[in-house]
Amino acid sequence: MQLKAVPLEIEAGGPLVVVMNQNDAAELGVISSDRIFIRHKDFHAICILNISGGGNLGELGVYKEVTKRLELQKDSELLVEPARRPESLDFVREKINGQRLTSWKIERIVSDVVERHLSDIELASFVTALHVHGVSMEENEALSRSMIWSGKTIDFGRSPILDKHSIGGVPGDKTTLIVTPAIAAAGYTIPKSSSRAITSPAGTADRMEAIAPVNIAFDDIMDIVNKVGACIVWGGSIDLAPADDLFIRVEYPLSIDPLLLPSILSKKKAMGSTHVVIDIPVGVSAKINTMNEAEQLANDFIELGGRFDMRIECAITEGSQPIGYCVGPVLEAREALETLYGNGPHDLVDKATNLTGILLEMVGQENGKQMAIDLITKGKALAKMKEIIEAQGGDPEIKPEDLVPGRYFYDVPAPKNGRVLFYNNRDLVRIARSAGTPNSKGAGIQLFAKTGDKVEKGKPMYRIYSESQSKLNNAIKQLESQNPMEIGTKVGEDMLKMRISKPTAPSREFILDR
Amino acid sequence: MQLKAVPLEIEAGGPLVVVMNQNDAAELGVISSDRIFIRHKDFHAICILNISGGGNLGELGVYKEVTKRLELQKDSELLVEPARRPESLDFVREKINGQRLTSWKIERIVSDVVERHLSDIELASFVTALHVHGVSMEENEALSRSMIWSGKTIDFGRSPILDKHSIGGVPGDKTTLIVTPAIAAAGYTIPKSSSRAITSPAGTADRMEAIAPVNIAFDDIMDIVNKVGACIVWGGSIDLAPADDLFIRVEYPLSIDPLLLPSILSKKKAMGSTHVVIDIPVGVSAKINTMNEAEQLANDFIELGGRFDMRIECAITEGSQPIGYCVGPVLEAREALETLYGNGPHDLVDKATNLTGILLEMVGQENGKQMAIDLITKGKALAKMKEIIEAQGGDPEIKPEDLVPGRYFYDVPAPKNGRVLFYNNRDLVRIARSAGTPNSKGAGIQLFAKTGDKVEKGKPMYRIYSESQSKLNNAIKQLESQNPMEIGTKVGEDMLKMRISKPTAPSREFILDR
Repeated sequence: MQLKAVPLEIEAGGPLVVVMNQNDAAELGVISSDRIFIRHKDFHAICILNISGGGNLGELGVYKEVTKRLELQKDSELLVEPARRPESLDFVREKINGQRLTSWKIERIVSDVVERHLSDIELASFVTALHVHGVSMEENEALSRSMIWSGKTIDFGRSPILDKHSIGGVPGDKTTLIVTPAIAAAGYTIPKSSSRAITSPAGTADRMEAIAPVNIAFDDIMDIVNKVGACIVWGGSIDLAPADDLFIRVEYPLSIDPLLLPSILSKKKAMGSTHVVIDIPVGVSAKINTMNEAEQLANDFIELGGRFDMRIECAITEGSQPIGYCVGPVLEAREALETLYGNGPHDLVDKATNLTGILLEMVGQENGKQMAIDLITKGKALAKMKEIIEAQGGDPEIKPEDLVPGRYFYDVPAPKNGRVLFYNNRDLVRIARSAGTPNSKGAGIQLFAKTGDKVEKGKPMYRIYSESQSKLNNAIKQLESQNPMEIGTKVGEDMLKMRISKPTAPSREFILDR
Repeated sequence: MQLKAVPLEIEAGGPLVVVMNQNDAAELGVISSDRIFIRHKDFHAICILNISGGGNLGELGVYKEVTKRLELQKDSELLVEPARRPESLDFVREKINGQRLTSWKIERIVSDVVERHLSDIELASFVTALHVHGVSMEENEALSRSMIWSGKTIDFGRSPILDKHSIGGVPGDKTTLIVTPAIAAAGYTIPKSSSRAITSPAGTADRMEAIAPVNIAFDDIMDIVNKVGACIVWGGSIDLAPADDLFIRVEYPLSIDPLLLPSILSKKKAMGSTHVVIDIPVGVSAKINTMNEAEQLANDFIELGGRFDMRIECAITEGSQPIGYCVGPVLEAREALETLYGNGPHDLVDKATNLTGILLEMVGQENGKQMAIDLITKGKALAKMKEIIEAQGGDPEIKPEDLVPGRYFYDVPAPKNGRVLFYNNRDLVRIARSAGTPNSKGAGIQLFAKTGDKVEKGKPMYRIYSESQSKLNNAIKQLESQNPMEIGTKVGEDMLKMRISKPTAPSREFILDR
């Protein structure tokens, strides 16, 4: 069938989608979701068909991705034929029906995901099936390998390559900004690619961006790491494991995360990492809630790493309250710098030096934690951080006080005298995001009391920062329903946690950042 | 946030979708798949957000469904706010995690499906979860009830209302065109709403359309049934259970069918049926492959019917080869008319009179099958069919010979002397669809031999009809890979069914028609 292209001013966000008039579709013998093969001059592609009641006979609406791939213009002549369903759909169906997939089948699926041959419907069903039936270690390995193959990999031409990763889920975790320069200061290579926030108030890339550019080209990363032994860049700019972003697109609305292991592992392997410490925070309002879950996940990481000749150790860490006192890109960057200057809060220093210590011991050092403490107290980590900042194009002389949060703020008073019994991380995240994080870098929350600390009725417990009055008002409005800090007399004395008189919708915020 | 509408010339095919520039989205604090609340003058809607790298700042691309709902024009001023995720998404998540859903939760989901508040991703995940975890009888009841509520229902003001339904899966099944007039000829009311083909060569609506109009308005159906006691119309024109079409949109690409029971039941109930016979064909290449499966399904139908005060009986029928000798809309309509004229093939007559007989006995008649045979042989069913045809706007004097298939045809010769051992229904369907069915009404297949019949090498086994030479060529090309008839000496003597030397992709065509 010959059709004329009508380029649509819209992206499908992944899949190659075209839209056909229903009479043309009937004539061609295809229905919505079928595949059609399209040829234009020397270009061709297999696209997913949508059918429209509108649209003109003889025309084919093409989404931007298709326009680009086939180099189309308005009224380009297209030769259109029905195409077979991709074979990978049979394998998706096998997974739906509970079968374990061979690595070859998983490779076909991931390849078709990256080639945009699977629709959102099909991808959503695959991810749901992975979540429901579970992912075996063999499948995790095949998924990781396919995700590595789908993108670029970096070879720094040296070994070992160290790395640190947190699975996320606890706010204010700026540990990477301390571990990375400390490890590099000890003479090791640690090329850190990090992500921006998805559902959290700040990702490591957002924090680092308050100090130095993080959107660094692939080739420049090589130069930076060769020169200073480290970097802290945004992974999104270097096209590592592009399949991951396509999976996240469907995982987010479903609030499921079956690809946690291969997603993290593939990105580490693509960076050439040989020794990785994985941080697994545990807490009632963190991503992982019990030690049991955390241990299982740690075992899986170690086993999976072994299958890729990567040595992995895991640190299960305290995740019941924010790390340090600051939440939000600028505030967190400031606290990280303060820590490198020797004035860090105890929990942040403890976490960073433990993780650094584990990494150092993994590559043969003794007394890793003490070595990490020395690297910080003697200013070596700070000196290295300045090198990293300069190499990435920032100002190495930046001081903590140069990092200024938004000029609108509101102090939230304690409702009574007492002590902080515990934190609701998710409520805190909601308030911080209402104030503008992560996009508005100066937005955030400064805590004045952590768990166990005394608060006085009417005195500020924490301060909300924002870069606009209207967003500050949004955040203040959240206070009506959100309660990030529980105040009482003594842990375990106030017995009633919640009264439920009618069924509630226990909707829990989903943490996708990983 | 204030944005200007940019109406897009494209339908989302269901969900209310809008497209925002990524910087506006970051400013608003929302990401792809989030919901946003949109107000324009007195109209408002909750829409699903897509985020585009392109698109202009300050503009919101709106799909046709949104343009229509909010009565938008180019540059209409929109007030846009983040909206909460629909509550039903929590229930979808519960189903993903294997929980049984209460009827209230299912009603919320179905209502949000019909309101277009769920995206394709979310709907696909829900349907996958239903398939994986199974649907309990309580869930089937709630799904049926919600699907009935979502659309229109018809009250013919009389009782009983009889109905017949086949779950599909066997080609050439024109039984409804005989059962319906036979039942009405016996003095009972049988308002038959039927569907068009989705994956088959012809649906009952396609067959009937070769004889009379089937696209009948809601009010006219009342008149027709009141006048002649029956109709055979296309269900799509009367908006019964609109949720079903939205589910089918995602079931089709996934080749899963978890909503078979509520889909059928809700449509029967919406038509006010009180006594229904359900035909379940069984065969190796039919939709249902074993007696065990068929019996389980029959039990579920009967139980579910009881919950809606509907008496249901099921007939498990032979589904191993096409019914009669004709496949394709015009050919099948001709064979059905011939049967009413008293010249039907044995299997078709036997099936139609058995189903008619069961229905007659369900409403208190004795010797139902004999009664059915008499209704046909005495011409009463034919006389009633003429009334139905006339009432629907067709020519009551139409004769079988007036129904002429496509003028291009090809006779497929027998590869050797022998007998037809068995039919591969799915291969036959592929050939028929390549020849143009169901859209091209004159396309189809005429069989010259059924299972057990002798064939002679080089003599025609069947004839492929088409309305164009190019489609006929397509169908002929299918013969290279499709083998609808197995020829041998005697059933069970030729022992090798298939030789497998390397792994194959046992892709089996999905039958969604129900």
